Amino acid sequence: MHVHHDKIELRTKGKGTYEITDEVQEKVNQSGVRNGTVTVFVQHTSCSLTTMENAAPAARRDVERFFDELVPEDADYEHDDEGPDDMPAHIRMVLTRSSETIPIADGRIQMGTWQGVFLFEHRRDAHSRKISVTIIGE
Amino acid sequence: MHVHHDKIELRTKGKGTYEITDEVQEKVNQSGVRNGTVTVFVQHTSCSLTTMENAAPAARRDVERFFDELVPEDADYEHDDEGPDDMPAHIRMVLTRSSETIPIADGRIQMGTWQGVFLFEHRRDAHSRKISVTIIGE
Amino acid sequence: MHVHHDKIELRTKGKGTYEITDEVQEKVNQSGVRNGTVTVFVQHTSCSLTTMENAAPAARRDVERFFDELVPEDADYEHDDEGPDDMPAHIRMVLTRSSETIPIADGRIQMGTWQGVFLFEHRRDAHSRKISVTIIGE
Repeated sequence: MHVHHDKIELRTKGKGTYEITDEVQEKVNQSGVRNGTVTVFVQHTSCSLTTMENAAPAARRDVERFFDELVPEDADYEHDDEGPDDMPAHIRMVLTRSSETIPIADGRIQMGTWQGVFLFEHRRDAHSRKISVTIIGE
Repeated sequence: MHVHHDKIELRTKGKGTYEITDEVQEKVNQSGVRNGTVTVFVQHTSCSLTTMENAAPAARRDVERFFDELVPEDADYEHDDEGPDDMPAHIRMVLTRSSETIPIADGRIQMGTWQGVFLFEHRRDAHSRKISVTIIGE
Repeated sequence: MHVHHDKIELRTKGKGTYEITDEVQEKVNQSGVRNGTVTVFVQHTSCSLTTMENAAPAARRDVERFFDELVPEDADYEHDDEGPDDMPAHIRMVLTRSSETIPIADGRIQMGTWQGVFLFEHRRDAHSRKISVTIIGE
């Protein structure tokens, strides 16, 4: 049993979902771990993680639209230092996820056929995002 | 320290919450692990996981009703290939969870007295669902 | 590789977010683990966990206000045995998190600069809350 730490760095170009499934699998490959778990953890509070349908782009657009409506930018927030997309970003992060732990068997992350891991960017501007990847296994 | 992989297969009969706490404990028993963690991971994008109150059926119905209203089937979704419950299923999955990691101490999953783990089925039709169970410990 | 179990006990004084980042780090220090993961798991169904912005109190108030409006106490719930804040507590718990797994590298939990872990209390009365802390690593 060993622990392997790695990091995915991602340059986002505004609000939306960015798939990182292949990058996570690549980190597992590099670790040499055949059986265990990989924990993906996003070190930010204005973007988040989610697993999601990765086949239909329309499904992703519907998810993004839903969050735009559920947590609108034009609501009356107390905290708005960084603009109208600041506070909605923090709330959308709370409503989704910061960490996801995925099983690894025979060297493969055990996701469903149309299931992907995504960084969910909630800010309008481009950002450099750090995602911690921790692999524990044998 | 060892890794044990297992799987829970569940046949759902339409929308609702299906408790799997006993099945998770059973997998821990079979693994022989006394101390560690169990990660439950659902390999689908139209059902999800949640921990929840497991004593009062009325509480579960209220949770289900809340999601029916928050993410209605009759909203105007772009992605509707598989019917009106298709896109709401994906969104409800994003709003809840795909993985949950639960501590194991002295061979028991360390859940609260009225706390259970549930598969949350978001589709109307019957489905066969696969839940990956990964136990790491000693 | 070892497993260390510990527990954080917290006395809440009504609805709100209570930061536990320092307590989690302290448990990691005590375990002696330098590399691995820490899984924080809340053993209740009327409070929850979230990671969040920990610098701006106004951001926390906005998050709390958002959940008060999204899951109102004066809605018509079937389950209301313990008062108007009972069922909203269960729903807010489902919408947020029960477990969070955070990487540990060089003895430090790998959180972002303004990122903290919080217990999110959803009940009006004071409660004694138990948070299980499981550290796996070397």
